[in-house]
Amino acid sequence: MSAEDRLQELGLTLPEVPSPVATYVSFKRVGDIVYLSGQGPKRADGTYPTGKVGTDVTIEEAYGHARQTGLGLLAAMKKAAGSLDKVEVVKLLGMVNGAPDFADQPKVINGCSDLFVAVLGENGRHARSAVGMGSLPNNMTVEIEAIVRVLP
Amino acid sequence: MSAEDRLQELGLTLPEVPSPVATYVSFKRVGDIVYLSGQGPKRADGTYPTGKVGTDVTIEEAYGHARQTGLGLLAAMKKAAGSLDKVEVVKLLGMVNGAPDFADQPKVINGCSDLFVAVLGENGRHARSAVGMGSLPNNMTVEIEAIVRVLP
Amino acid sequence: MSAEDRLQELGLTLPEVPSPVATYVSFKRVGDIVYLSGQGPKRADGTYPTGKVGTDVTIEEAYGHARQTGLGLLAAMKKAAGSLDKVEVVKLLGMVNGAPDFADQPKVINGCSDLFVAVLGENGRHARSAVGMGSLPNNMTVEIEAIVRVLP
Repeated sequence: MSAEDRLQELGLTLPEVPSPVATYVSFKRVGDIVYLSGQGPKRADGTYPTGKVGTDVTIEEAYGHARQTGLGLLAAMKKAAGSLDKVEVVKLLGMVNGAPDFADQPKVINGCSDLFVAVLGENGRHARSAVGMGSLPNNMTVEIEAIVRVLP
Repeated sequence: MSAEDRLQELGLTLPEVPSPVATYVSFKRVGDIVYLSGQGPKRADGTYPTGKVGTDVTIEEAYGHARQTGLGLLAAMKKAAGSLDKVEVVKLLGMVNGAPDFADQPKVINGCSDLFVAVLGENGRHARSAVGMGSLPNNMTVEIEAIVRVLP
Repeated sequence: MSAEDRLQELGLTLPEVPSPVATYVSFKRVGDIVYLSGQGPKRADGTYPTGKVGTDVTIEEAYGHARQTGLGLLAAMKKAAGSLDKVEVVKLLGMVNGAPDFADQPKVINGCSDLFVAVLGENGRHARSAVGMGSLPNNMTVEIEAIVRVLP
């Protein structure tokens, strides 16, 4: 089953890849490696869920935000590789806007990791760190950056 | 126009690349990829601007600190690649020492991104994340690490 | 002297490489580059030292935690490369669970950097950033991720 079929089966639609808003770009390819800029859980209306995970936002809510972020990353991966079936996820840096004593960053970032494996199968499995930031742009709850390989 | 000409036109001078002060190095090259150690906005006298962006330090001030940090990274890139005209910036991790509710990390890190494009042209355009840290070495305001490619 | 001999001389034993507990893996290899997932200072009993460095935990204690984390990373490197003598450390991201005004992240992460050079010699020398996080998984004191090269 293709990655696009799995997306459809999961009832998911990829968002638009955000246009570069400054002197940086959504992704940069070097050989078969693509570096994806950090993304957050952008809603269809362009806003983001905000607040500190652990106080303002629950782990379950933030898991959903990480999953939403993953959809945006999949969209960028597809644009970079031409097809999701040619994408292998290599590495994630999963960043959670947590309260100072928040300790469940991995449970949050699983929202993205689980999505990648659901859509890409074994090619979605990756190395990662899931950590807590002091603050994030727009006060959003989650930001994730990724490194992927384009398969031949 | 060469990158060195652009630097001169901008009235900028590259600082010295800091010597390794411990068991790590300023940059490490693997094939045509160079990983640059994180740097901060070091002043000529060796000190750093300090404080939390959003409370102690304004966005405009921190933009200048990110630009200053970019100069140090350009110096390391030049040393690694031999010439700035052989450097393509691939990826930045822009880290801001922000107050817990600081939400404008991208506006700060633009100071570095804008400098790279001003000096390197299209080769300066990169993928990036711009995020908020809990704290930074020396209590400095900004730290940025970079991955670059050495052009043939 | 081989890396294994140096480990023995230092009286160190590598821990088990943790099994993937979710949809991610301990390391991912792409060509001769290996991306290692972030690890913390896991004790033999599976627990972690916790707290904020600078208030709950001293620099000296946290240096030891970074060293302990380095042992876990060496174990993963060995598994990825077959032998520690085929490992060259390229880049570390050293993340310290510091108090908001903590400013000595490099002194903490030296615990890992020093270990890599003690065990791997010149191949242990790397680019790095040593920074302060807002929070970390399990409220642990330190987390470090690494990129290494497998030598031919």
